[in-house]
Amino acid sequence: MTRDERFENGLTMLRRIDGEAGQKVIDSLADISPELGHQVVAWAFGDIYTRPGLPLRDRQLVTLGALTALGGCEPQLEVHINAALNVGLTPQEIVEVLLHSAVYCGMPRALNATFVAKKVFAERDLLPVTAP
Amino acid sequence: MTRDERFENGLTMLRRIDGEAGQKVIDSLADISPELGHQVVAWAFGDIYTRPGLPLRDRQLVTLGALTALGGCEPQLEVHINAALNVGLTPQEIVEVLLHSAVYCGMPRALNATFVAKKVFAERDLLPVTAP
Amino acid sequence: MTRDERFENGLTMLRRIDGEAGQKVIDSLADISPELGHQVVAWAFGDIYTRPGLPLRDRQLVTLGALTALGGCEPQLEVHINAALNVGLTPQEIVEVLLHSAVYCGMPRALNATFVAKKVFAERDLLPVTAP
Amino acid sequence: MTRDERFENGLTMLRRIDGEAGQKVIDSLADISPELGHQVVAWAFGDIYTRPGLPLRDRQLVTLGALTALGGCEPQLEVHINAALNVGLTPQEIVEVLLHSAVYCGMPRALNATFVAKKVFAERDLLPVTAP
Amino acid sequence: MTRDERFENGLTMLRRIDGEAGQKVIDSLADISPELGHQVVAWAFGDIYTRPGLPLRDRQLVTLGALTALGGCEPQLEVHINAALNVGLTPQEIVEVLLHSAVYCGMPRALNATFVAKKVFAERDLLPVTAP
Amino acid sequence: MTRDERFENGLTMLRRIDGEAGQKVIDSLADISPELGHQVVAWAFGDIYTRPGLPLRDRQLVTLGALTALGGCEPQLEVHINAALNVGLTPQEIVEVLLHSAVYCGMPRALNATFVAKKVFAERDLLPVTAP
Repeated sequence: MTRDERFENGLTMLRRIDGEAGQKVIDSLADISPELGHQVVAWAFGDIYTRPGLPLRDRQLVTLGALTALGGCEPQLEVHINAALNVGLTPQEIVEVLLHSAVYCGMPRALNATFVAKKVFAERDLLPVTAP
Repeated sequence: MTRDERFENGLTMLRRIDGEAGQKVIDSLADISPELGHQVVAWAFGDIYTRPGLPLRDRQLVTLGALTALGGCEPQLEVHINAALNVGLTPQEIVEVLLHSAVYCGMPRALNATFVAKKVFAERDLLPVTAP
Repeated sequence: MTRDERFENGLTMLRRIDGEAGQKVIDSLADISPELGHQVVAWAFGDIYTRPGLPLRDRQLVTLGALTALGGCEPQLEVHINAALNVGLTPQEIVEVLLHSAVYCGMPRALNATFVAKKVFAERDLLPVTAP
Repeated sequence: MTRDERFENGLTMLRRIDGEAGQKVIDSLADISPELGHQVVAWAFGDIYTRPGLPLRDRQLVTLGALTALGGCEPQLEVHINAALNVGLTPQEIVEVLLHSAVYCGMPRALNATFVAKKVFAERDLLPVTAP
Repeated sequence: MTRDERFENGLTMLRRIDGEAGQKVIDSLADISPELGHQVVAWAFGDIYTRPGLPLRDRQLVTLGALTALGGCEPQLEVHINAALNVGLTPQEIVEVLLHSAVYCGMPRALNATFVAKKVFAERDLLPVTAP
Repeated sequence: MTRDERFENGLTMLRRIDGEAGQKVIDSLADISPELGHQVVAWAFGDIYTRPGLPLRDRQLVTLGALTALGGCEPQLEVHINAALNVGLTPQEIVEVLLHSAVYCGMPRALNATFVAKKVFAERDLLPVTAP
């Protein structure tokens, strides 16, 4: 596969899971680091996300766990909470994921991630989230 | 629910997903911080893990993402890679989870977690892991 | 103790140390993750903070050290610098805590935390902080 | 104060709170980075620890909170759990500090720090730790 | 060297590499923690940055790697991306540094740092950054 | 460039900078996650390290800053302190890099990295490191 084909592959995946939000991130890199944009698309979304063996819903569960634990990744959490909804996770499940993560990374990071979810859900008219 | 009932609830869950490994961690806390042992069992496993709305397999995906990203949690990764196998994730899926996490937390943490998986899989006679 | 009693216990403690700021955080969780709000109150403030053996002033010293070192916890630092004042730490002591933490987590995290303290102290009319 | 006086100041403090353990760390830097050894002594212990306005017991509470939250600092936790005992914190208080920190940095880091405390307490014949 | 001389030394270095941005940070500490301001200047810039054996350009490469990996240090990245330009790193090199760091700390932290670079480069009229 | 060509490219680079140590890491992944081994070689060393615009010596400065700050990456620091020597950094410069990083990530992480350097330098008969 050529560099361009890897990029095209990644772009298809990026659009599928992140919609316009992912594209906007790549666009905003055009005048500062187009290569970082290329690597996010061609490597992360083209080479890794497209691999068989782990469905997209599972990948988003891992991603939410990792981004919540890392801390300071609120912009990426915003993109990937949208992505989580796009690949079939429900608002209730996402909220439960963030509560669960508190066990491993503590209350502050779980709270920060939950307030990002609140922003995303508000924009998509998904509030209030009711108990499962 | 009383404090003891919450603990019993948690112990049942702990045994179900972590088997003896979880029990050993709690036992080794007995002479230094029995209360931390109580909180891990009663709160983490009793109050959080037993909640409806997110299956145990999903919880382990989130846990692996969080522990890999945190770094320095090799003892907990060992327990939870065992747990992941116990709740139905395959070795191939676990390996893919750790590869996926490299996108978010970088190669060193993904490598460290993968070598913990290698140790766990060796003990359970699950090596080599073949491509999916 | 029942789930409701643990929550009531925590609410009393939360109001005592965080005042309105803590309540606001819980309120803002009501439409997104009332369970996370419950766990912060019932578990963190009800089960842990109320334990004997470590006075509230000591708990805030530990909390400030942990939040400063974690990074990316500015909203929680804001709440807990207020809490530190509420349980008897002086502005001079809080500033010294953040300077001390620089030894362990480096200058950037100490600076970020100190600028949160500046915001809190300004709101409470405690600036300038004079040398001890 | 001269560079040597700052170092002497720091060495006095280091011996007071860390005893031989601190001296051993400095000695082991002699053939690789004597300047790092100098900075730990002269700056951290000489300039910062000796400042008025925060008693040594308070400084160790902050230090334990920060080191637990950082993760991967087990060697430093070993030195500073010893230091905490040396400046008057009881085993019960130290164990409570580490439990408290779980609220902010999650269970894995609290567990890792607690097992370091177990090692230190065993060496000083302080096990088992009984409830306060 | 006296405390004041160490401070003067540091101030000269701070102005040389950070220009007005560094001075502003120190000024903004005057009413909250003048001692933290003193330590940043006298210790970090006076004692460490002025040491022989590592040129300033090399020190900024290390600093950018560390700040990107830490996460949550966007204010410090802003100061030090300016500093990197001031000591001779080109915009292309800085962008490449941040891309390189993605290998070690993952895409989110590399993206966050790159968007800080975009802000700094825009203020200094250095956009677009063209391929090397 | 094909997947195999990217891998061959990366392998050439890996051998050039990491020597046998890098190859050993890849080999040890063969029975657990050959794909992670492939990505480290083909992406990190093939796609990123081979890019023009930043010399290998500069890349190692960034890498050491990032790995020191991350914490818990001692195995990777061992590989990359060797790599730093291989691409022309002197022991004195490496030691200075780790001292410099203390400003940004605190003393514990700088100490941990320095003790990894001591191990590597001992194996390569480079101790004691003398002042520059």
